[in-house]
Amino acid sequence: MSNLKFKISKTDGQARLGTLSTAHGDISTPAFMPVGTAGTIKAMTPEAVAETGAQIILGNTYHLMLRPGADRVDHFGGLHTFMNWPGPILTDSGGFQVMSLKGLRKMSEDGVVFKSHIDGSSHNLTPEYSMEIQHKLDSNITMVLDECTPFPATKKEAYTSMQRSMRWARRSKDVFVKRDGYGLFGIAQGGIYPELRRESAENLREIEFDGYAVGGLAVGEGQEMMFKVLEDTTPHLPVDRPRYLMGVGKPADLVGAVMRGIDMFDCVLPTRSGRTDQAFTRMGQLNMRNARHKNDTRPIDPECTCYACKNYSRGYIHHLGLCKEILGATLLSWHNLHYYQDLMRGIRGAIAEGDLETFAEQFTAEQAAGDMDPI
Amino acid sequence: MSNLKFKISKTDGQARLGTLSTAHGDISTPAFMPVGTAGTIKAMTPEAVAETGAQIILGNTYHLMLRPGADRVDHFGGLHTFMNWPGPILTDSGGFQVMSLKGLRKMSEDGVVFKSHIDGSSHNLTPEYSMEIQHKLDSNITMVLDECTPFPATKKEAYTSMQRSMRWARRSKDVFVKRDGYGLFGIAQGGIYPELRRESAENLREIEFDGYAVGGLAVGEGQEMMFKVLEDTTPHLPVDRPRYLMGVGKPADLVGAVMRGIDMFDCVLPTRSGRTDQAFTRMGQLNMRNARHKNDTRPIDPECTCYACKNYSRGYIHHLGLCKEILGATLLSWHNLHYYQDLMRGIRGAIAEGDLETFAEQFTAEQAAGDMDPI
Repeated sequence: MSNLKFKISKTDGQARLGTLSTAHGDISTPAFMPVGTAGTIKAMTPEAVAETGAQIILGNTYHLMLRPGADRVDHFGGLHTFMNWPGPILTDSGGFQVMSLKGLRKMSEDGVVFKSHIDGSSHNLTPEYSMEIQHKLDSNITMVLDECTPFPATKKEAYTSMQRSMRWARRSKDVFVKRDGYGLFGIAQGGIYPELRRESAENLREIEFDGYAVGGLAVGEGQEMMFKVLEDTTPHLPVDRPRYLMGVGKPADLVGAVMRGIDMFDCVLPTRSGRTDQAFTRMGQLNMRNARHKNDTRPIDPECTCYACKNYSRGYIHHLGLCKEILGATLLSWHNLHYYQDLMRGIRGAIAEGDLETFAEQFTAEQAAGDMDPI
Repeated sequence: MSNLKFKISKTDGQARLGTLSTAHGDISTPAFMPVGTAGTIKAMTPEAVAETGAQIILGNTYHLMLRPGADRVDHFGGLHTFMNWPGPILTDSGGFQVMSLKGLRKMSEDGVVFKSHIDGSSHNLTPEYSMEIQHKLDSNITMVLDECTPFPATKKEAYTSMQRSMRWARRSKDVFVKRDGYGLFGIAQGGIYPELRRESAENLREIEFDGYAVGGLAVGEGQEMMFKVLEDTTPHLPVDRPRYLMGVGKPADLVGAVMRGIDMFDCVLPTRSGRTDQAFTRMGQLNMRNARHKNDTRPIDPECTCYACKNYSRGYIHHLGLCKEILGATLLSWHNLHYYQDLMRGIRGAIAEGDLETFAEQFTAEQAAGDMDPI
């Protein structure tokens, strides 16, 4: 019996329409989670994030454990209170960021010893410590500490790495503090090897988690391979538990992954792109720095109902980008997050209608039509 | 007969409680105008600016003429539409910024030839051209082009400079396009010399403007001297027209200047300070970067009703500052603008009660009490 209720109300092929219930509220799935790295969704207020339709956000354990520190977040009553986000929060384990600190970290069976990129201080991230930190952050969905298998990796490397992740998953589960409305997700690894993915999934099922993530993807393998790995993995995950594809991705990745049984996503793309003057639209991406926008009185997308599109022209947003004005980052992050949530709303609506395939075809056709009609 | 209605409903000593009416709405005076240099109040949405109580904002002609250019703002229907600020807008003449471009500009009786700090392109800012630009920006309150007399300046220098400003004021008036709800303000100069200030004020009265600014202050002369210059100037300005002290200032400057007959102010201080982690409070300034805030669960000011104080702790804002997160700049700009508007609300309330002196005494006592009670 899980501490996180998950109700699937409709399926369409492998895709599922569901509701995940946490102590801080419900999440309609498939869901996209904006990333709030250091306790803020960059350039946005929490109210603006909620207004886009986001129901859950992600916090980064690595960043938060270093600054302001888990004890301090705890002192403020947890991450929800600290950052003024009353809704559900998922935190990653810190493993992914720590492992990307090449030269600053040392892996062992125990965990990862690393030096902070901020002040060089030494830390030892173990599965047990990651659970403790995420508990102090008051995260609704805690992720097990795993080893993100590099890409490319030989089958032997992927196997050895996956096995360690499975041992760490067990250690994470052993110390995770159960509470109603809070849950722990396992993470399947195994690189691009179907047998390893299956073995990893079966290992996790045996340990039993509140949800199951697919890890080690979007690290350079490409969309086609990513989709194949999903096809090799999701059939071996419990059908009645949420599935989360970590760190993904582009709009087309989301549509394809939902069709392969994924319920949850997170990615920095909408906000990071917003801070570099890129806008996502139904017809592809717009570079707002491009001079062709300078006299354009139309909004980014005339059909979009976000705050930026309701109130500002492409020309104004182009101007803000040139002047490096903060409002430009805010408006484009807002629009992009709204676009991602619109996409998820569209996906959920299509599953409800049993028509996800048509939705996906239209989506692909619109994106292929190239970028929004230029003046 | 002016095209800008100004009604004074109450006076208290030299201080005046008034309403200035423009084509884009009314302004309760004494008023503080947030500065929107490049067509945005930095780090704020216009809705957030309005929520602080600001009724009019300032735009910088120098920045806007270079980027995006007056014709382009005109193409978008004027600055109100371009930047999504439906309320009144005052624009400066561009003179102050141009004259601070030491080495990049050449002054003559005609105007100022200068090179853009952005791309080195050459421009010729004359009184006539400044009027044309401000007209295209659709500014509700246009400022004459003047020469901001340097500080210190000999009496002869100040006289020569003031005389040129007066000739430019006349030229500005000659080409200004009259429209209902739009007006032109003259600017009194004369350095620190009472006779020159008086002569300048009388010159301007003769030309006749919709409002009168006191220029050339807050350039290093200090508060005491600034107040003295106001005492030497405001008595010579028409009593029935708004008076604007340009580029000022600190909270205590505002209180003192209102008591010397000033109705309008603008300053970058609340927003610039917000972007460098400084908070204005009733008890003085707080440096939010200071480590003593790190565990503080209280808001910046428990009595403040701004968005930042209602929703965030000092500890969180300290954290955002350390991480250089955009939301930190937003929250502190928001708080500081709210503080300034609260101060103006307090001043207006005190004038209405005929009790500005007591208000000023309390204000001074609170500020002198030093910064907000530390933990």
